[in-house]
Formats: sequence, structure tokens, C-alpha cells
Amino acid sequence: MQHVYFDEKQSVLMLLDQRYLPDSEQWFKCAGTQDIVYALQQMVIRGAPAIGVTAAYGCVLAALEARGSSNWEEDLEKSLQTIEHARPTAANLAWAVRGMRHAWRSGSFFSPAQLAEFWLPEALHVHEEDIRINKMIGAHGRDLIFSGDTVMTHCNAGALATGGYGTALGVVRSAVEQGKDIRVIANETRPFLQGARLTAYELARDNIPVRVACDNACGLLMHKGLVHKVVVGADRIAANGDTANKIGTYTVAVMARRHGIPFYVAAPFSTFDVQTSSGEDIPIEQRDPAEVKCMTGQMIVPPDVQVYNYAFDVTPHELITGIITEKGVFAPGEMA
Amino acid sequence: MQHVYFDEKQSVLMLLDQRYLPDSEQWFKCAGTQDIVYALQQMVIRGAPAIGVTAAYGCVLAALEARGSSNWEEDLEKSLQTIEHARPTAANLAWAVRGMRHAWRSGSFFSPAQLAEFWLPEALHVHEEDIRINKMIGAHGRDLIFSGDTVMTHCNAGALATGGYGTALGVVRSAVEQGKDIRVIANETRPFLQGARLTAYELARDNIPVRVACDNACGLLMHKGLVHKVVVGADRIAANGDTANKIGTYTVAVMARRHGIPFYVAAPFSTFDVQTSSGEDIPIEQRDPAEVKCMTGQMIVPPDVQVYNYAFDVTPHELITGIITEKGVFAPGEMA
Repeated sequence: MQHVYFDEKQSVLMLLDQRYLPDSEQWFKCAGTQDIVYALQQMVIRGAPAIGVTAAYGCVLAALEARGSSNWEEDLEKSLQTIEHARPTAANLAWAVRGMRHAWRSGSFFSPAQLAEFWLPEALHVHEEDIRINKMIGAHGRDLIFSGDTVMTHCNAGALATGGYGTALGVVRSAVEQGKDIRVIANETRPFLQGARLTAYELARDNIPVRVACDNACGLLMHKGLVHKVVVGADRIAANGDTANKIGTYTVAVMARRHGIPFYVAAPFSTFDVQTSSGEDIPIEQRDPAEVKCMTGQMIVPPDVQVYNYAFDVTPHELITGIITEKGVFAPGEMA
Repeated sequence: MQHVYFDEKQSVLMLLDQRYLPDSEQWFKCAGTQDIVYALQQMVIRGAPAIGVTAAYGCVLAALEARGSSNWEEDLEKSLQTIEHARPTAANLAWAVRGMRHAWRSGSFFSPAQLAEFWLPEALHVHEEDIRINKMIGAHGRDLIFSGDTVMTHCNAGALATGGYGTALGVVRSAVEQGKDIRVIANETRPFLQGARLTAYELARDNIPVRVACDNACGLLMHKGLVHKVVVGADRIAANGDTANKIGTYTVAVMARRHGIPFYVAAPFSTFDVQTSSGEDIPIEQRDPAEVKCMTGQMIVPPDVQVYNYAFDVTPHELITGIITEKGVFAPGEMA
């Protein structure tokens, strides 16, 4: 599933707009820094690895935008910082921008056009590497999933959350490619419904059996023995293995532990942030209350009532059975 | 808040239609057994005590309906059974119908009209008693809630779930009436959104500070220390204290235990079912998949993808700090 690509002719980044899936497949065109920031903040695209890939391409657009500036290096640096801070939680965002900046600062470029030309293959490489890494995550993770298993996942850590293929769903895809009989329970994942909309959409497209459940059904489904493994993605993994992921992941992990169900995090090394010692130091984004108050354009909460809209929570490392990476499966904290 | 009343002139039961709250206040008119069953099954009205009250009035309508029948006693008994089995989980439904049947069988009635005349004050009494009992639950429960507390509740166990006043929200109301400074976090409660729509609506109306959160935020909010007590209602309490309540309650109880937060169930004795020895024996209703797949009339899950829609789960007694009743606060299992 190619949902992100750079159109070299037009010099634009094309994104399959995830706000309208699965109802319609609309494309969002990014021509410059502000479009990239909008796409990230409004969740035209989301998922930590996909955010990283988008940011890498965004640097190319920022360089093109700096053409004609008398002070292009300063202007470009400002744009990079704007992209880097578009969203606070995903480690892959800063990781991608820092990587691009490092490549710039390590070379010598006479013009932003020259830098953009140098950066485009770099961004394409980040993108291709992400897919390759996802497949390696899948190859390491599939041994943990047995034929007959039902895997619960939260949010969308699939092709749409990455350059393609997926982290948590990459593990599922890889197990299915081995011929294993795997079913998935997708938690719907309020408020943005990434599970109901995106995970269900991409698994159904691939003919992998998937069933959607409201987030609050997780305890009952586990109690009934309907869940054998949990595999989720990650937005940031602290040095001690504490993992920030979509709001609700922590609750799923607690319930999995209560029911003796293995709980795995699948993520590339770009999600690790060794500068952050524990989950307590991971910044948790608070998003627009309208995301909770409005569903499909209609108010579901009385207008004068406030809501909480924390976008992520932290699963403490002791609830994580293993972290599945491109380099193998690790105990949380082992990679610090 | 009077949301259920019997219109004697028209011989109809009027219900504030909870499917359209808080957007609009529409009334649903029940003229006979089929209307009652429809109202219960489609959740025009819901909440175990309110279901009981509605069923009591429903018996009156069933008796009126049996007028002119050559075999009215048999016809009426069939109607009572239809009402009794409209929904499987709430104990108060069978309790109310059995109570009305007992009053019928203990007397001697020459006609259904005569029985209806006898039954109407009985139904009014069930209704008034429910409100009185709620206030007693409130009076017992309020001592457990301290000024400054934020109380998390799940679903709607308020005036709209009862004859009026509420069980869990009755405890909150009673504490507020004492002058205590109480805040409420209402879990939105997918799929029917009783928390976002109904709990928020009735607390905002009463100027009790309420904030809505998606169900999956519960773990983070507790971790942040934002929740001091949990108070929920109940649909059926087994002899050992295991409690069926709206799907998601079990997960909230597990998270409360992890965070050392007291978890209370507030319910009248009519919710106790001593015939059911433990939660494993409580029938759990599965409802129309469309409730999960459609939000505010729009599909949120791809059409070919299946969903789970269990309406209730069971909280095991060991996770319940206390059960608040009209007769005082009990340890779970103490009343068997």
C-alpha cells in the first residue's frame, strides 16, 4: 500500500488523507513546510514511523521553499525546527529531522536547490529503509505468534502508520505470510478511530480476518479467552523501556497482564529515545477537544461540557513482555 | 428530572427518548406491550432501575390491551413474559414484572380493566419507591465521597437510568447537596455514549462540574491522580457480589485497583439476584453490530468488517470496595 510518495515533477509530497478513510480515498498535496505541519497536526498522516518519513520529505520541501531567500540557511533551519516540533510525542519526528540536518551540516551546499537535490534521495532512503525495517520487525516478531492466535492491537501500527507494511501489523502480516492462521481484534481507538477505520481497512484489504471492538470491551474479550497475544506500536520508547503509545495502550497492557496474555511492542530503533530516562519524562500531547466532542461532524457531548483529550499514555516497562525491533526481540530496557 | 410518566387521560406511558439526548428532547409514547418492548430493546430508555419502572407501567398497558379478549388472562400472561424477556441482563426487569404478577395473582380480578385500575397505583408506587430508594442510596453513599474528590463514573447511572435522581449519580448529587465540592469524570461509554450524552447532560443541567473522557483514557487519568473515587451502577448483582454493569466497567475496576482508588457500586436491592450464584451465570446481552459500526448515522468501520457488541461485562466481587444500597453500604457478597 503506497500511501506516501514524492511527486518529483510537481515537487510535492502526496499523502493518502487518513481523515477520510475508509469512506473515501482522497489525496492531500504538500507543497511546503506549512502543508507538512498541517498534515502532521491534523493527522492527515499519523503513526510515529510515518511521521518520520513525512518529516524527511518535508525537509526537501523546506529546502525548495528556501530558494530565492537571501538568508536561505537561516530560513531553512527555522523551517526544520517548525517541522521538528509539529507534534511532541513521536520520537521519529525529531529523529528524521535531525538525520536530515546532520546530512546537510556534514556537506557543503551552495544553494537550497542543490541541498534539495541531495536530500531527496536521502528522504527516499529513509522511506525505503522504514519499509525494509518493518519487514525485519515482522520477521523477528512472527515467531512469537502461533497459528490459531487472535492478536489484539490498539490504534493503527500498520502500513498507514509507517512507510508501508507496518510494525505491529507487520508482525501479523509476516505471520500470515508464513501460512499461519491469525485473526486480529482491532480496538476502535477513540477519539480518532484509527483501529475501526484504518486497521480494519488495511487488514480487510489484505484478507486478514479482523474484528473491531470498542476500547472498553477489552477486559471482557480477554476474560472470555478471545485474545492470545497483544501487539502494539510505539510513539516513543524511553531508556528504561517505558513506552508511549496511543491513549488506551496502558489499560490494554494492564488487562493483558491480569489475564496472563503476552504484551508486545513492535517498533524500529528510531522510536527509541535514550535521552529520555523513563516514561514520566515523555511529553504527552493534548489535542483539540473537538476530536472527542464531535463524531463524524456531529456533537456527542453537550456544548458547555469540557473533555479530556490526551493523545497518548505510557505503558511502564514491567508490563511489556518484549519489544520487537529490526535487530531482534529485546526485554524492555535492554537496549538503553 | 421527570423523564417517565404515565398519562392517565390518554392511557399511555411517556418516555423522554434517550436516543436523541442531548441534541433534542423528544418524547416517545408507549400505548401497548409492543411499544414497551421496542422502547426497552432500542434503548429509548435504559438503565436497570428505569427498565424496572418502565416494565411496571408496561404491565398496566398490557392489561389495558387485554380488554375485550375472550381469554384475557392467558393473553396478559403472554404479554408479561414478552416484557420480562425484552432484555436479558438487568435484574430489575424480571423483578418488576414478577412483582406486578404477584399482586395480580394474589387478588381476584373480574376484568383486565379492573386489574389495570388496581395496577396503576402499584406501578406509580414502584416508580416513587425507586426515587425514594435512590435518595437513600445517596444518603448512605455520600459519606464515602469527600469534598475535593473527583468521581469517575461509567455509563449513566443517573436520573435517566432510574425513576429519577440516580444511583451512582444519586451518591454524587447527595454529596453535592451536603455542600461538598465534587467533580465528575464521565467515561463516554461506547457504543451508545451514555456517559458523553446522558451523564454529561444531566450533571451539566444540575451545575455539577463534569468532564467527559474517552473510555480508553481511564488508565492515564488515574495515573495522573485525577480520579479519587469510582462509583458506578449495576444491572445485576450475583449472590457472591459479582456485578454486571455496562461494558467497560470491569476494566475501570481493574485500573482502580491498580491505582489504589476505591471502587463502589451503587444499586437498589432490586438489582440483587440471589438465584445467580456468581457473575459467570449472568447472561450478557449481545446487541446489534450497527451500534458499533455506525456513529451519528455514519459508518465508521468498513462495511465488510465484523464487530463485537457485548453490552455488559462482569466485575468480580474482589475488585469492589463496597456496594451502596438503600439499606447501607455492604461488602460484596454480604447480602446473599
